[in-house]
Amino acid sequence: MSTENDIFEVMKTMRAMRRLKPDPVPDHVLAQVLEAGTCAPSGQNLQRWSFLVVEDQAGKKFFGERYDYWMRERFADVLRDIDYSSAAGRQAKAAMHLASHMHEVPVLLFCCGTRDWPFAVAPAERVGRAPPSYGSIYPAVQNILLACRALGLGASLTTMHQMFEDDMHAFFGIPATHGVVAVIPIGYPAGKFGPITREPAPHKTHFNRWGQGKPGLAEPMV
Amino acid sequence: MSTENDIFEVMKTMRAMRRLKPDPVPDHVLAQVLEAGTCAPSGQNLQRWSFLVVEDQAGKKFFGERYDYWMRERFADVLRDIDYSSAAGRQAKAAMHLASHMHEVPVLLFCCGTRDWPFAVAPAERVGRAPPSYGSIYPAVQNILLACRALGLGASLTTMHQMFEDDMHAFFGIPATHGVVAVIPIGYPAGKFGPITREPAPHKTHFNRWGQGKPGLAEPMV
Repeated sequence: MSTENDIFEVMKTMRAMRRLKPDPVPDHVLAQVLEAGTCAPSGQNLQRWSFLVVEDQAGKKFFGERYDYWMRERFADVLRDIDYSSAAGRQAKAAMHLASHMHEVPVLLFCCGTRDWPFAVAPAERVGRAPPSYGSIYPAVQNILLACRALGLGASLTTMHQMFEDDMHAFFGIPATHGVVAVIPIGYPAGKFGPITREPAPHKTHFNRWGQGKPGLAEPMV
Repeated sequence: MSTENDIFEVMKTMRAMRRLKPDPVPDHVLAQVLEAGTCAPSGQNLQRWSFLVVEDQAGKKFFGERYDYWMRERFADVLRDIDYSSAAGRQAKAAMHLASHMHEVPVLLFCCGTRDWPFAVAPAERVGRAPPSYGSIYPAVQNILLACRALGLGASLTTMHQMFEDDMHAFFGIPATHGVVAVIPIGYPAGKFGPITREPAPHKTHFNRWGQGKPGLAEPMV
């Protein structure tokens, strides 16, 4: 067993990888990634996820053009003033690189879920289209990202497709019963995996009541 | 390194564990679980999660009473007719067991997120309170569940608190800026970990266009 598979090591080195090589991802590797997704928990084990693997040029071009347009539209102000030598600046640069190279990424994985009103929304308030149950899809999304890292694949979690999801339904034939929760571009990374940067857990943790601490476990910074 | 830590093994044996021993969970073990949570990705790496670890009797009793009430209220019809010898029946029985023993579970972990309108919701449509960004919190929730499994802890993902979240804010002092996304009851399992039951990934996968297949990878059952 390779140390690549140690779950804590995988988590601690699972950075968003946005610069990807065009080399294809073998089907048997992708199959392992998808199987990891289906291992996730879901409400009442209903497994309301569906995956759409997009590898053809027409599909990737269609998606990439819209994704790139909305990234520039949405982040125009931010990009004008950004300091590209800062961590946030480098992150923005990598995100824009991914956007403009989306059509060259070997696999675009659309993670979909059936639309369903959460039970906390009273029937009288159920107006318009229900969202998919994010809580039943995102655990699968995270399993997929972790499996990619364990298998040496670069990936990142994107949600900008929300700006043009209707177009995607029409082009890819996704039925109205389903929503697209996340899009994961997957390929072998051009760069190296590396440690992630996070605020330490105790700073994000409260004990018994909000704002209370417990040394070593909960030292909340509010 | 123990094989317990192999990421694919962990995923494949990560069942919801709803029968838990009252034995305490050591702080250093819980700290590892929370650190795993903070390794998750989040939009722009903003890490908008906060955790509330509830171990005191008053807090667990307050939460357990309401949780148990709503489980019975919400599933009254289902429970009346259920076949307890079926898989769904056994699952329902375990869920009701957890509900009525919630106050005896060693750790209740509230996974919270800051409220923020998703960018896909136009400003004119931003009415009422924004939900937390589920996509930025659920990957952390899944990391926490996987870490529990790797460390031999039983856990499950619950969302029934949505029915009485306002009460929780008042009792635990959770600020209005945050929402509670999921509650994870954690303890050492009374039963055994075991394989999960899932529909095979190829049945949930489409290739290039919805409904299209690719042998071995995508054999969609629609």
